[in-house]
Amino acid sequence: MGKRIVIVGAVALGPKVACRLRRLDPEAEITVVDRDSLISYGGCGIPYYVGGDIPDIEGLCSTSSHALRDPEFFRRSKGVDILPRVEALGIDRQAKKLQVRHLDTGKEESLDYDKLVIATGATPFKPPIPGADFPMVFTVSNLHSARDIKEKISKGQVEKAVVIGAGAIGIEMAEALTDLWGIETTVVEMADQVLPAALGKNMSRIIENQLEKNDVKVMLSEKVEEIVGDPESGVTAVRTGSGTLDCDMVVMSAGVRPNTLFAKESGLACGRSGALLVDRGMRTTDPHIYAGGDCVELRNLVNGENMTMPLGSLANRQGRIIANNIYGRASKFKGTVGTFCIKVFDMAAAKAGLTFAQARDIGYDPVHSLVAQPDRAHFYPASKLMYIHLIADRKTRKILGIEAIGSQGDAVKSRVDSVAPLLQAGIDVDEVCVLETGYAPPFASAMDIINNAGNVLDNILEGKNITMDPVDFIRAFEKNEIQVLDVRDQNEIEPFIKKYGKRWMNIPQAELRDRLDEVPGDRPVCLVCGTGARSYECQVLLSQNGFDNICNVQGGHAMLLATAPKFV
Amino acid sequence: MGKRIVIVGAVALGPKVACRLRRLDPEAEITVVDRDSLISYGGCGIPYYVGGDIPDIEGLCSTSSHALRDPEFFRRSKGVDILPRVEALGIDRQAKKLQVRHLDTGKEESLDYDKLVIATGATPFKPPIPGADFPMVFTVSNLHSARDIKEKISKGQVEKAVVIGAGAIGIEMAEALTDLWGIETTVVEMADQVLPAALGKNMSRIIENQLEKNDVKVMLSEKVEEIVGDPESGVTAVRTGSGTLDCDMVVMSAGVRPNTLFAKESGLACGRSGALLVDRGMRTTDPHIYAGGDCVELRNLVNGENMTMPLGSLANRQGRIIANNIYGRASKFKGTVGTFCIKVFDMAAAKAGLTFAQARDIGYDPVHSLVAQPDRAHFYPASKLMYIHLIADRKTRKILGIEAIGSQGDAVKSRVDSVAPLLQAGIDVDEVCVLETGYAPPFASAMDIINNAGNVLDNILEGKNITMDPVDFIRAFEKNEIQVLDVRDQNEIEPFIKKYGKRWMNIPQAELRDRLDEVPGDRPVCLVCGTGARSYECQVLLSQNGFDNICNVQGGHAMLLATAPKFV
Repeated sequence: MGKRIVIVGAVALGPKVACRLRRLDPEAEITVVDRDSLISYGGCGIPYYVGGDIPDIEGLCSTSSHALRDPEFFRRSKGVDILPRVEALGIDRQAKKLQVRHLDTGKEESLDYDKLVIATGATPFKPPIPGADFPMVFTVSNLHSARDIKEKISKGQVEKAVVIGAGAIGIEMAEALTDLWGIETTVVEMADQVLPAALGKNMSRIIENQLEKNDVKVMLSEKVEEIVGDPESGVTAVRTGSGTLDCDMVVMSAGVRPNTLFAKESGLACGRSGALLVDRGMRTTDPHIYAGGDCVELRNLVNGENMTMPLGSLANRQGRIIANNIYGRASKFKGTVGTFCIKVFDMAAAKAGLTFAQARDIGYDPVHSLVAQPDRAHFYPASKLMYIHLIADRKTRKILGIEAIGSQGDAVKSRVDSVAPLLQAGIDVDEVCVLETGYAPPFASAMDIINNAGNVLDNILEGKNITMDPVDFIRAFEKNEIQVLDVRDQNEIEPFIKKYGKRWMNIPQAELRDRLDEVPGDRPVCLVCGTGARSYECQVLLSQNGFDNICNVQGGHAMLLATAPKFV
Repeated sequence: MGKRIVIVGAVALGPKVACRLRRLDPEAEITVVDRDSLISYGGCGIPYYVGGDIPDIEGLCSTSSHALRDPEFFRRSKGVDILPRVEALGIDRQAKKLQVRHLDTGKEESLDYDKLVIATGATPFKPPIPGADFPMVFTVSNLHSARDIKEKISKGQVEKAVVIGAGAIGIEMAEALTDLWGIETTVVEMADQVLPAALGKNMSRIIENQLEKNDVKVMLSEKVEEIVGDPESGVTAVRTGSGTLDCDMVVMSAGVRPNTLFAKESGLACGRSGALLVDRGMRTTDPHIYAGGDCVELRNLVNGENMTMPLGSLANRQGRIIANNIYGRASKFKGTVGTFCIKVFDMAAAKAGLTFAQARDIGYDPVHSLVAQPDRAHFYPASKLMYIHLIADRKTRKILGIEAIGSQGDAVKSRVDSVAPLLQAGIDVDEVCVLETGYAPPFASAMDIINNAGNVLDNILEGKNITMDPVDFIRAFEKNEIQVLDVRDQNEIEPFIKKYGKRWMNIPQAELRDRLDEVPGDRPVCLVCGTGARSYECQVLLSQNGFDNICNVQGGHAMLLATAPKFV
């Protein structure tokens, strides 16, 4: 008789463990249980199903060759038994038995195991707001809620929606509601920026503008105090600290909580997040019980601390490793550097590692560069501006994080992906300067934006490049604390001179050497150009000539336009 | 008085050294000489100028803010003197003097230097073929030849062209001639594949088909013996080993040779390629003389040997490092992993590291996986097939090379770029399996193609996955050496059964467990499916059931269709 393997959870990691193990070990007795009737689906595709990119829900639970991934499919094609509508109740670890209940019949039984795999995932967190249980208040938890949301919308029952939380799911859902369905959507976020766990404040401004440009209203630093409505008929409004938003639907996207109750009750150790602790072989504190996916804590490979990282991609990779280990190969999952990407209408954002704030909060002395540059050779017609934010530790020059935003999503992701896998090895700024990514004019610049992000950061760390962030520049300019010196050619900046008069003076770079005496020496001067390259060169020239109260705006006019379109 | 720096060459690396150094050191006396009248241009953009993507040649020598990068620009904006039409003749290393000739006046003089930088680049190689010097025989050497080629074409003087050499420039030029101008173009290549230095034989077939599909004729294993024509009026044909190709224009793209004559004569050491030897600080064998760009040999960081890698991207990165070192910072350029990418009509190819053949030829025991998979979540509408070729050393499991091809170029490049920077550190197969690139359905699969390329290679190395390459499969099938067992569903494969009868039998994966007795045991069976995933699973099932004369086609039908569209 083969080893008895019981797996709890059949969405991403569970089936992966089961199928891989079957291929490694034809003798194993593999049983997968899941409390849901729908299994093995791409939950991360739900916003695209709601938004219409994926017409039918079957698209999310089919293979690429259009086979439905139901229990019959797993039995026949994969040789794996999956039992839906079976809930795990508890573990008798001594006897190695999993207690389960068949939800349709109420029947309980216990399943013997040699190895148990916990793949129970996570559940969206419903903040304890009055009205949170009214009809028409949804979380994006599974295919049932996805179907419900789309049904309500497609029946025309939703004109206005409020999304609570501006994390990834909140933004993806806001796009889905607005883009296809034209629903008036407001995203309410407690933090003072969108995607607070992923982006720095300058970069997040670009995404905020992108949302507003596409008719999604964004309210930041705003707390939802009540969902107004009726336990029978649904919701009519959301009351926040500063007012009331009428709406017919509320989508809560306030993060997820790991599903670990029965595991925790059986005495398996959990971390601060409530997720299970596992070693690098994905074993819990009981060596006969493995766990992976959204219900475990992973090592953050940049700062060494534990974190949760609920992503189907990581779950799948861990699944293979768990199967290897159960079979008897020593496979390791070292952790995560938090690589992330998101589509926001016709833009994309990606990041890996720590944000500036995260780095600062755990005691690093972070230094950052912000670069705006075409995403391919500037002379190549398809080139579009991209923005990169690179963060390093001042003392060690180690890269702590990278963020990118642009309108050609694959190109955005590619820059982050080329740095992300190096973060765990401790890549430093100098390595980014010479990072050897592919070059041809249709796809990159000879000195690519990723290298330039390193070059700029190197110059900042060396004290050559004295910078101001776009958001700080706007604040300082509005308070009249700085004199702007724009070094672009006159024809490029006439609107600014018209709008701001003497506060926005102009000396083109080519003339600066001969006009040094016109540069004010009695007040702070901030240099501006198109993307930050020329203003840096001019700042160096001025520094070399004894000017000491000067700086230049990172990313120049391009970054100002992206972060504060109304200002420029 | 500042340091006297003389730089020979003003295309890519030379100006970079000069401008960076000026920012570091306002006192340095920097002189750049170049024998050409046109300087500081993006030579890699020439095919896109010829092909019309870039309308004016000024596009190749302007900044992103449309300033022409001429000597006046460098003087005024960068504080750097560039002297065009000045040729370097020789170096008196003892006296630290560079002998030069002003080409317009014939005047000779010697320039004193404290540090000399050789940035003389490379010149296209003209193979010694009779007729190579006729008019209408071009190399893609500089903006003059670019202008000449485009002028001839746009005047309608070219109906048929022959491109000699199917390396990157040859392919880019063939596309330029065909795509915009509709010129009947034939590429003649001595090797038995296109891009022999970049791609393995299966992958190169995809590019060959892509060229043929776009009306570029490709002749492989073919040697040009004579260019037929007249020293006055031009060419009329190219005679190869197998026949004669009529044409009005010949473009030679048979590689480049480093311009190192005067440097070599002064006693600086060169490698086997004829390019200068430099240390990691980019110093030649004379510590007062630096060199970089296309005229130096670089360390190949995968195999440790020297190679040339003529790319503007590397030149720029080296330029910054040379400037740092001259200024007194210790900056290093460790070498290259040969990262490369190319657009081929509406496809792209990218690679890093060694090809299978290169790895084998230097003594590795290479093992490779070929994977076909959508480049984003298969359910996401924009997903397109991508092909990846991953090569590892059998003994150490270290990754030696990676190649990717697909129709969404940024996505292709992104997969290679995520592995390339890790090659020098010795990434192994297991690390590719868990490579943490960004995941969201619009940009990647949960188990992304890059991870699956690792998974497949792991399975091959473990002896679980028994494979046959598409090109070998086609040969074996045509020789009737194998029985095909297609495990797709019947409706997917009807055309094959019609075309090949019993030689192409069908048992769908879902039925295989129950129909094992129908699988022939008396002759070699090769399994085929859509992309190689199902055929692998079926092969494992058969292996577990005692079948020992079986294999499965890597990349499945998708790879067969891409490599041999006429066969399938």
